[in-house]
Amino acid sequence: MTSKTKNRLRVVPLGGLDEIGKNMTVLEYGDDMIVIDAGLMFPDDDHPGIDLILPDYSYIIQRREKLRGIIITHGHEDHTGALPYLLKDLDAPVPVLGTRLTLGIVQGKLEEHRIKKPRLKEVKPGGHVTLGAFGIDFLAVNHSIPDGVAIFVRTPVGTVLHSGDFKLDQTPIDGRMTDYGAFAKAAKQGVTLLMSDSTNAETPGHTPSEAIVGATLREIFARARQRIIVASFASHIHRVQQVCDAAVACDRKVVVTGRSMINTTRIARELGYLHIADEDLLDAYAMGDLPSDKVVVLCTGSQGEPLSALARIANGDHKTVQIEAGDTVVISATPVPGNEKAVSRVMNRLFKAGADVVHRGVARVHVSGHAAEEELKLMLNLIQPVNFAPIHGETRHLHAHASHARAVGIPDENIFVLENGRCLEISEEGARLGERVESGVVYVDGLAVGDIGHLVLRDRQVLSSDGIAVIVVAIDGQTGAVVRDVELVTRGLVLAGDASGDSMDGAHARIAKVLRRMCSEGVPDTAGIKRALRDSVSQYIWDSSRRRPMIIPVVLEV
Amino acid sequence: MTSKTKNRLRVVPLGGLDEIGKNMTVLEYGDDMIVIDAGLMFPDDDHPGIDLILPDYSYIIQRREKLRGIIITHGHEDHTGALPYLLKDLDAPVPVLGTRLTLGIVQGKLEEHRIKKPRLKEVKPGGHVTLGAFGIDFLAVNHSIPDGVAIFVRTPVGTVLHSGDFKLDQTPIDGRMTDYGAFAKAAKQGVTLLMSDSTNAETPGHTPSEAIVGATLREIFARARQRIIVASFASHIHRVQQVCDAAVACDRKVVVTGRSMINTTRIARELGYLHIADEDLLDAYAMGDLPSDKVVVLCTGSQGEPLSALARIANGDHKTVQIEAGDTVVISATPVPGNEKAVSRVMNRLFKAGADVVHRGVARVHVSGHAAEEELKLMLNLIQPVNFAPIHGETRHLHAHASHARAVGIPDENIFVLENGRCLEISEEGARLGERVESGVVYVDGLAVGDIGHLVLRDRQVLSSDGIAVIVVAIDGQTGAVVRDVELVTRGLVLAGDASGDSMDGAHARIAKVLRRMCSEGVPDTAGIKRALRDSVSQYIWDSSRRRPMIIPVVLEV
Repeated sequence: MTSKTKNRLRVVPLGGLDEIGKNMTVLEYGDDMIVIDAGLMFPDDDHPGIDLILPDYSYIIQRREKLRGIIITHGHEDHTGALPYLLKDLDAPVPVLGTRLTLGIVQGKLEEHRIKKPRLKEVKPGGHVTLGAFGIDFLAVNHSIPDGVAIFVRTPVGTVLHSGDFKLDQTPIDGRMTDYGAFAKAAKQGVTLLMSDSTNAETPGHTPSEAIVGATLREIFARARQRIIVASFASHIHRVQQVCDAAVACDRKVVVTGRSMINTTRIARELGYLHIADEDLLDAYAMGDLPSDKVVVLCTGSQGEPLSALARIANGDHKTVQIEAGDTVVISATPVPGNEKAVSRVMNRLFKAGADVVHRGVARVHVSGHAAEEELKLMLNLIQPVNFAPIHGETRHLHAHASHARAVGIPDENIFVLENGRCLEISEEGARLGERVESGVVYVDGLAVGDIGHLVLRDRQVLSSDGIAVIVVAIDGQTGAVVRDVELVTRGLVLAGDASGDSMDGAHARIAKVLRRMCSEGVPDTAGIKRALRDSVSQYIWDSSRRRPMIIPVVLEV
Repeated sequence: MTSKTKNRLRVVPLGGLDEIGKNMTVLEYGDDMIVIDAGLMFPDDDHPGIDLILPDYSYIIQRREKLRGIIITHGHEDHTGALPYLLKDLDAPVPVLGTRLTLGIVQGKLEEHRIKKPRLKEVKPGGHVTLGAFGIDFLAVNHSIPDGVAIFVRTPVGTVLHSGDFKLDQTPIDGRMTDYGAFAKAAKQGVTLLMSDSTNAETPGHTPSEAIVGATLREIFARARQRIIVASFASHIHRVQQVCDAAVACDRKVVVTGRSMINTTRIARELGYLHIADEDLLDAYAMGDLPSDKVVVLCTGSQGEPLSALARIANGDHKTVQIEAGDTVVISATPVPGNEKAVSRVMNRLFKAGADVVHRGVARVHVSGHAAEEELKLMLNLIQPVNFAPIHGETRHLHAHASHARAVGIPDENIFVLENGRCLEISEEGARLGERVESGVVYVDGLAVGDIGHLVLRDRQVLSSDGIAVIVVAIDGQTGAVVRDVELVTRGLVLAGDASGDSMDGAHARIAKVLRRMCSEGVPDTAGIKRALRDSVSQYIWDSSRRRPMIIPVVLEV
């Protein structure tokens, strides 16, 4: 290593840029390296059959001997979900640092993955640790999960402030404010680079306080004459707390259903982040005896997930909760982009079952956990960083955040809209774009991790839109003669005129003709037969039905 | 037919309830029947490979001898798109009634489907026609396409007012107001049933006037220093007019690209609905010579459609339009639910290419064409109908609209939240729910119409998430002995440990074992072999990879 590269801080974003999810940032100085967050992303319709998407963290694995620790800013999956995979691949006891609730959630995840004895190191907001060349402070921030922190990192050549996910809530439910004093102190020391959450950069104004949701819930609960069902994110402990408080205030018991809701409320109560008396919390199976106006059901499924508690309730196949006409259902969340239709489907079913569905479109039953434009500007003005890199957002959000930075006076040349894998190099001379390093996505598909290529995804897309046709032919290996009728199997494919069976007959006739021609021309080779079968059947199906299914010819020589 | 059924008006909704799209309503009295709208719906991810969704209109076909006419309220696909299919299936020259622009658009569609000499009958807003027992008035309404109408139908036992799609725009671009006088006149005659557009029933307040978009466009155009690209719905002639006006006002030429945009602007200009001088309109190929600050490109693709002009521009593969840093792109539309991610993807690419993208989230570059809560209440108060049935919307929207009706004093028992196929019977005694008739969906898939069963869709979903495994075995028909190595072909399937090839070997070993066992037990039958192969391979793949692909065993007896 040259002295030049030794005296520079390298910032490597491995995830979270041009996407919402799989957040991961590497800081590297000399022989030391730390990682901030190890998140996953949930796949959309472009990734049929994929369970999870992880950042490609080869960069970290290749430098594992430098890794001094992994810092997790808060307990959401897009910041923690890749951690089990990363720890397995590191195969070394790397310290994982986080606050109390964050580590509580992380520990649950690692246990599910059977990772034994991880080196979890609890840190406190306001606390300080040293990892190799890095001096690290943890700054309290508000977010839609308790105990979130921003990270202030000092190195010999400059400092980095990483905001984590944050909002500036002036009346947080737990009284724990974003620590303006700590941010001001960091600003006073000088921030070489601010990396800040762009999720809501396109939203004008301020994000409303979580407290207003409580007021809405109390009003809705006071009006309800029958059962109340509230769906929310399990990890949104403040929201859960407000549902519990509103329930207890109107003399209702809280029934928790849905696996992640049950797990998270248990952890949050054990660690002291959720406060509700034992007698006010009921098991779903114990609910039957209570009158419907004495119950609030708290459940998962606010994103319309087909197997969630709320979807089961809407479909009438939940074990213990059935909708009756006059019940009130509160969707206390906003659909993540891509989930709009699924959420709408669940809502329509609930309406049909007779429920009154209260959602974000008609009442203040949800607020965001991310800072909007004016908060982002306030953060920029408070920190007055030399350089700025928007993080956590699609390109559109990063650009919106960049334009806010310009508006508060950060010079254009000091604003870096990065991409995953594009490094930023910080030295005493300043910041500049560095090289591109290996980055990208790793798919988790059943038990397979990372072996899923784009070819497989493309195959699945073809299969899903146009189906498949398999043609099986047995030929005599000596003579080349066809020894049996051809088998043609189709799935997910509709041939025009199917009802009369004409099309299948037509396809068989076409295949027979091709085989006769090939045989008459001499002993054909298997590859040639396959190619001829594929071409002729493909053309036949296109002509008759305007479809291009996947075609698999199988030639058995017997 | 009994005298009882003779003296009642039957209202049959065949589409548009619990969905946005495929609007279709039948009115039937004695020996006469009319149809209002014949729309289609675009499929979502639950319908892989499906091109279009039509309403099941068997009810109409079965009573075709009664059909006196098909009335089209306006030229959008969700009101016109099923018409070519319906006319083909009717196979009789049924009159199609609509206003001038509506019929202009319909004619283009029918020509594409090679429907010759349709009986198109132009009507005028304020005009009147008689079709059998039905006396029909056409009432001008504002919408996001010109020349829309509501339909007022008189029968011996009552009247129906069908709103079509509407908003109450006080400053419409073409000066053509919703005809409040005509609505008041209908109200004075007495409206037995109001059927009214629920699309925006969840939106509080009033939908803003289309005119405000023009003001925003003029501001954006005045600021732009380079090329301007505007994406919008081709059929939104008022929007197109405003883009043209803003362009001409700042001395830019308008270049139209995208097939439907070219077609619709041509029809609209020919029929006198779009006004721009020939010299201000340029062909895309003639654009090259103009400086970039003298051009506005008007294109399709506001929904992120992958093959649209805007998507091609964003991907850098449009024939004549390339993005340069500093270009301005205006997305003058809102994503239809389900299209959010596709639109975001196009926007992100445009930002990466250096464009400044202006969209609905950051400027008033789009307003809806549908009435919001206060307009819907105004319509209810203006009409004071005896009975009310919300139409055009998912169940959530229909319920929201029903609650607005309750709020303005319509008694609960006179509000009918219908479903597709659920009839409403109107007689002199009043309105009541009638029977359920055949209704549902018809899929268009390539050249196949209607033969696509749910089984095919389910197959496609399995194929798309878990892939397929085909096992081919040749056995001696006499001895039952396996005469050749087994072929195992997989597509869209990743077996854990694929890299080393272990899994495929494992699967082959499992198959060989099953076959040995079966042969040793005597001459096996083909069905038995297939079942055993399917079970064993399915179990093997589940154990090794936690996937359940479609498994197709093919046994050739040779």
